[in-house]
Amino acid sequence: MTKSVDLNADMGESFGPWNMGDDSALLDIVSSANVACGFHAGDPDVMAATMTRAMECNVGIGSHPGFADLQGFGRRKMQLSKDNLKNTVRYQLGASRGMAAALGGQVRHLKLHGALANMSSVDADMARACYEAALEVDPDIIIMVLAATEMEKVVRELGCNWAGEIFADRAYNDDATLVDRSKPGAVIHDPAVAGPRILQMVQEGAIITESGKRIATNIDTICLHGDTPTAVALAGAVRNSLTEGGIEIAQFSGRRG
Amino acid sequence: MTKSVDLNADMGESFGPWNMGDDSALLDIVSSANVACGFHAGDPDVMAATMTRAMECNVGIGSHPGFADLQGFGRRKMQLSKDNLKNTVRYQLGASRGMAAALGGQVRHLKLHGALANMSSVDADMARACYEAALEVDPDIIIMVLAATEMEKVVRELGCNWAGEIFADRAYNDDATLVDRSKPGAVIHDPAVAGPRILQMVQEGAIITESGKRIATNIDTICLHGDTPTAVALAGAVRNSLTEGGIEIAQFSGRRG
Amino acid sequence: MTKSVDLNADMGESFGPWNMGDDSALLDIVSSANVACGFHAGDPDVMAATMTRAMECNVGIGSHPGFADLQGFGRRKMQLSKDNLKNTVRYQLGASRGMAAALGGQVRHLKLHGALANMSSVDADMARACYEAALEVDPDIIIMVLAATEMEKVVRELGCNWAGEIFADRAYNDDATLVDRSKPGAVIHDPAVAGPRILQMVQEGAIITESGKRIATNIDTICLHGDTPTAVALAGAVRNSLTEGGIEIAQFSGRRG
Amino acid sequence: MTKSVDLNADMGESFGPWNMGDDSALLDIVSSANVACGFHAGDPDVMAATMTRAMECNVGIGSHPGFADLQGFGRRKMQLSKDNLKNTVRYQLGASRGMAAALGGQVRHLKLHGALANMSSVDADMARACYEAALEVDPDIIIMVLAATEMEKVVRELGCNWAGEIFADRAYNDDATLVDRSKPGAVIHDPAVAGPRILQMVQEGAIITESGKRIATNIDTICLHGDTPTAVALAGAVRNSLTEGGIEIAQFSGRRG
Repeated sequence: MTKSVDLNADMGESFGPWNMGDDSALLDIVSSANVACGFHAGDPDVMAATMTRAMECNVGIGSHPGFADLQGFGRRKMQLSKDNLKNTVRYQLGASRGMAAALGGQVRHLKLHGALANMSSVDADMARACYEAALEVDPDIIIMVLAATEMEKVVRELGCNWAGEIFADRAYNDDATLVDRSKPGAVIHDPAVAGPRILQMVQEGAIITESGKRIATNIDTICLHGDTPTAVALAGAVRNSLTEGGIEIAQFSGRRG
Repeated sequence: MTKSVDLNADMGESFGPWNMGDDSALLDIVSSANVACGFHAGDPDVMAATMTRAMECNVGIGSHPGFADLQGFGRRKMQLSKDNLKNTVRYQLGASRGMAAALGGQVRHLKLHGALANMSSVDADMARACYEAALEVDPDIIIMVLAATEMEKVVRELGCNWAGEIFADRAYNDDATLVDRSKPGAVIHDPAVAGPRILQMVQEGAIITESGKRIATNIDTICLHGDTPTAVALAGAVRNSLTEGGIEIAQFSGRRG
Repeated sequence: MTKSVDLNADMGESFGPWNMGDDSALLDIVSSANVACGFHAGDPDVMAATMTRAMECNVGIGSHPGFADLQGFGRRKMQLSKDNLKNTVRYQLGASRGMAAALGGQVRHLKLHGALANMSSVDADMARACYEAALEVDPDIIIMVLAATEMEKVVRELGCNWAGEIFADRAYNDDATLVDRSKPGAVIHDPAVAGPRILQMVQEGAIITESGKRIATNIDTICLHGDTPTAVALAGAVRNSLTEGGIEIAQFSGRRG
Repeated sequence: MTKSVDLNADMGESFGPWNMGDDSALLDIVSSANVACGFHAGDPDVMAATMTRAMECNVGIGSHPGFADLQGFGRRKMQLSKDNLKNTVRYQLGASRGMAAALGGQVRHLKLHGALANMSSVDADMARACYEAALEVDPDIIIMVLAATEMEKVVRELGCNWAGEIFADRAYNDDATLVDRSKPGAVIHDPAVAGPRILQMVQEGAIITESGKRIATNIDTICLHGDTPTAVALAGAVRNSLTEGGIEIAQFSGRRG
């Protein structure tokens, strides 16, 4: 049986007159698109255009909710009550689903954005609030989690559909957290390094940390970026390494438990 | 067969720390609630609270989209492209549906708000764009229209589910438009006048204009307000007049054609 | 020489269609108004109306900047970079000054709002960033600080004009911090208690804590609230106690060092 | 005496994570910068960075207020009351002045943006409301108007400081209005055409229309764009043509009457 993996990227993060990222280039590379829902980026027109293009490219559509903070692009930590968190996710996922339905499509998965994701990856209560809210809207939605974090613990507890994600361009510590961006080597810019590295992780079914340690985990999808020409080149290199290594690129179907 | 009519009111128009209207009082009077969707009023927490209370009171939930204009409360005219209009409605209806689903409820109808409604009542293309967008999200949704306006023509052409609405507290011209607010008698403040007047309209199945002319139309629902103590009193008086006149208060089921 | 003290209240915290507080009632009681600047509350129309009324009542105008968070009313903690903080304060103070100048008035003081104030009262770096930003816009502005907190240390270091503030309706711990709202007695609701208590503090020139300890400090102004009928009654009682006790109510003139 | 003219461009129209235009390139070309004020673009951080760079380049700073419509970039028509218009301008100009003062700079001029400008160029009442508001904040500010429009009539009536502006890249009708964008030749893209054409207009002190008609007017400043590489090239070409033609590039000093 051929091994397969999904490739995902954040998309639809333009807003009004402002463009962000090279969504067109990424749509030729990825199999799943995390589409912003208007709170940190992505107005309704951008959402519609992004989902339409994703459908044309047979790329799976995901809802990508974030904090209501356009200026900070959802990257600034905010302290919300549990109820507010839940309502924020319900609203954004609902908006994504409404837009997708109107276009004849479907929201397959949900991935948290920015500070909402970062905080949830180390705060199980926060992750649980967000994921419960999403499952209340759609019990079958596939929750995309950062592999081997609190997020993963929560989806296992919830017994819902989920997919585990690793980053194509980030180095890992031995506890599966990301190496701090301020440290040398934290971000991988060289496509020639990133491609084989990710292929190896997928083949071994493990995160390979900076020290060489293996953390066995479910690598269902790999996060790529498109905000710079280099990022797109790296994304393409990762895809090529995987396909040349015999790994099929295909949308995750979600796992339970 | 007992005649029945629906009573509706705009609700959930608080935002963040700011309260608007007396939703609790209205929920004892109306059978349908038009719940704001966050663009002109109604943040996700307000939406959740409003829908929860509506469900507890067996009041039907509607989506009440408006222009993205908090400061102007969606009452200022904006010129949007047709695509932008459609995406604006898709997004807000989707958000309403996501929230309702998460709470175990359902969005039964859609009613446009403020300037979006006023402009659409005299601009068939605009009404059509909004209604098509809503029907793309949910083909079964009941579109609430101002009776005998361009809105009604559009829903008849679309062949969708709809319900015709008149105002409890506004005088009508002979062409079924509302008497301009600046004119004396345009707004009816006296509960003792409003109640019998609406009962008569419902019994006759016609708008009764200022001049006494009858405009036969489908009166499926009557719009009430709750933004002042007087408004709530008038709303209650209209309900009493109707029930004492043998008219049952019940959610509309929608009509086609 | 007659002792005098200023009375201040947050005002102009309505937004668009939504009203907050009873500014008219407060304007008869206070001598200084902290006028919201549009980020947490107070759109330009509200600012103009509030400043106009303050001027008519000979009430001093202050700029009351907060986090850009309408839904959260500026009460949710946000993590901003130092530069972002500074620019946020410069912008809001500038807007206040522009509005006041257009109306023939003047912004005399600045008081931070909500979470921005709470965080700054325990974080000298944050307070310094905000106050430096304000002084860069207007070197003569009077900075209103929570007496005996990090804020006060910072204004003393900066050598700027400042005024020390205590709360009329909050109990104090022995370290001059406020008793947590969740504890009994933390908030004083009884006008008959609040009035004499504040008079005593002003006469002694000291915060009197729950345990009876005296913390000598500069009480230049007393913060009142107007968001409930009770709050307005308490505000009036505090004013009466002070005037009957021989304390003149007058705008602070600012102190240095 | 050497003839001189000012070159201006809209700047600081980035927002949060989103970039717009090539401000750095333009700052080497223009003598005046119209800096967005946060309503249609330009958050406080962007304003600070843009003003700082403008000052380093000895480029005059202007306030560039627009409608509160980020998604529409201030290009969608909005119907505001006269008071709301005035307060909107007062607020934004105040914010600009606060920011400039904090950075050791000064706001020299005001130019309306987008739909606010387009509407005001044909609606004297609207222009008057905006300009009166600006002059109430700063009686000495130089108002930049579209030459030979209602805007110019208004500033002449007001007797304020003003500067007349023409577009480097737009064709003119015989009544001094711009040729509609939908018509061929309406927008001039060829630097080799734009440069000599503008030089000729400045030398003749007249708008030269498509038909060759001369409309004598005060050409104090020429509007350039930087949103595309072509736009920057055209801007540079206009500057070169002018300087090679013996016209000095210098900030306008404003004219009265």
